[in-house]
Amino acid sequence: MTRVLVVRESRLDVGRVRAARGVIDPVFLDTPQYRCEALEPELGCEVTVKLETANPVRSFKGRGTELVASQLVASGNKAVVCASAGNLGQALAWSGGRRGLDVTVVASRFATAAKLDRIRALGAKLELVDGDHELARERAAEIARYDGIRLLEDSLDLETCEGATTIGLELMEGTTKFDAVLIALGGGALATGVGHVVKELAPDVDVICVQPEGAPAMTRSWRERRVVTTESTNTIADGVAGRFPIPEVLDDLLLVADDAVLVQEASIITGMRMLLNHAGLVVEPSAALGIAAILEDRDRFAGRHVVTIVCGSNVDMPTYRGWIGL
Amino acid sequence: MTRVLVVRESRLDVGRVRAARGVIDPVFLDTPQYRCEALEPELGCEVTVKLETANPVRSFKGRGTELVASQLVASGNKAVVCASAGNLGQALAWSGGRRGLDVTVVASRFATAAKLDRIRALGAKLELVDGDHELARERAAEIARYDGIRLLEDSLDLETCEGATTIGLELMEGTTKFDAVLIALGGGALATGVGHVVKELAPDVDVICVQPEGAPAMTRSWRERRVVTTESTNTIADGVAGRFPIPEVLDDLLLVADDAVLVQEASIITGMRMLLNHAGLVVEPSAALGIAAILEDRDRFAGRHVVTIVCGSNVDMPTYRGWIGL
Repeated sequence: MTRVLVVRESRLDVGRVRAARGVIDPVFLDTPQYRCEALEPELGCEVTVKLETANPVRSFKGRGTELVASQLVASGNKAVVCASAGNLGQALAWSGGRRGLDVTVVASRFATAAKLDRIRALGAKLELVDGDHELARERAAEIARYDGIRLLEDSLDLETCEGATTIGLELMEGTTKFDAVLIALGGGALATGVGHVVKELAPDVDVICVQPEGAPAMTRSWRERRVVTTESTNTIADGVAGRFPIPEVLDDLLLVADDAVLVQEASIITGMRMLLNHAGLVVEPSAALGIAAILEDRDRFAGRHVVTIVCGSNVDMPTYRGWIGL
Repeated sequence: MTRVLVVRESRLDVGRVRAARGVIDPVFLDTPQYRCEALEPELGCEVTVKLETANPVRSFKGRGTELVASQLVASGNKAVVCASAGNLGQALAWSGGRRGLDVTVVASRFATAAKLDRIRALGAKLELVDGDHELARERAAEIARYDGIRLLEDSLDLETCEGATTIGLELMEGTTKFDAVLIALGGGALATGVGHVVKELAPDVDVICVQPEGAPAMTRSWRERRVVTTESTNTIADGVAGRFPIPEVLDDLLLVADDAVLVQEASIITGMRMLLNHAGLVVEPSAALGIAAILEDRDRFAGRHVVTIVCGSNVDMPTYRGWIGL
């Protein structure tokens, strides 16, 4: 019997991303990365925050939509549609809008109202579906087919992962040496993008993905090395609440993630509260997943230097206040 | 009769600041500057935020203390003392501490507790006086004389203004064209530093200083072109609550400020609330002075592009919640 070793290569290429970085508006690049010592006594490890909220769309998604929108314009496209929990939609509205593209965003009517409001304010056409994010994905695909326009699929479309890869490049170009990076895991763009560059340039650094227990599809898929879907999601972390992992993204994730962990809602809320009280940062639940992971396994991180990517801050303030107990 | 025209030159020199910028830890430099469109409908003008809070000391003061501390080390000094409302002290503790300097900070015992806690946590010696910031300044001078160590005087010592000048350089190097910059006015380091570079490189841009009505000493001094002191202060904006303007700083301010305005406490609080609710930014009162100025004079700014420097985010959370009405 002959054994064939199949070496699966990532879809990502650091050199290509380095070259593409120049088309991203600088407002999304070189974001703050700094030690947050006020968080450390409670967490028992050194914590560096990579802050992706101080830009016009308050999340990291602009990095990827800048790549997409500039390519669309270069190839003569006039319109684009995406499904979004709200952050990708805002970013695409921003990047597409300023390049004269017609942007349509499909979202769940249960999505965070502040995100939907901003999508509209940025001039995109917003269509709401009476279901969750997976239904929005179906509807966006339908619009793309019907209108004959480009469908932007988060995490599947390489630009969305390449945008996230630029975060990893910045972390590696910084002077801070770190032992682990904690990455919110949803569709997988952020985790595969950041994970890829970290593993390529610093293989000893742990790439740890974090997902809520209430939306564990990608984590389960990573653990079983095959796509596992779920019937529903139940988490406040709207940005990572998918049910149908994408096979190509899972394959990329299997190449770079050292671990994928699930955290409880209570830990996410504690993480959000700590980021507010000790770091002065308003964050959305997905952005507190890394802190939640430390809180649930302090021994694992004790004394180590951990980077956590604060990936978004789009919250409905009344809801946020309710979570935090303000 | 012969008339002698005396041309007073600023103490600041943009070329020197450009050259010195390299000694500042990058964690304080190239801070986010971005349009905050969610704020704009309520303000009636275009607003760009220059965010100085996403760093280890949560204010812009690290830019100046990096210059000071590296010079102290280069000249063989072992210790330094300063008076501080809390932000300069944190920054000096950070910059001095990592260079092996003994740092002493003198503050009012009524200062923001979170600021005092962080000064201690950063390893500085903290001495509290039973009075306001002006008494802390006296006491710091006394310690410097008695111990024979360097006294760092905010706004008087050029490095503190030069640190702020680097903010102005970044604004001018950005792609955003703006019509006015709103700068919190306290001792004057921020206003003279930013104002100087803006006026030198873009004379048509309005440099507008903003101070609370409850701490108007520098504004009154600027208006009367001579030092005017006050008996007391009454404002939540602790970072700008001085009573004794420094003549040399006033001279520099007279060269660059197009206006100095006073705002009410209620406007500062509204500004803080808007920055939280619409921009997701926790800020200290001094950092909301610019928004307050727009709120009090919408006609003046209508349709213009205004930059506001969000200069700090160190707040006691319970007090902050009280202000915001959370």
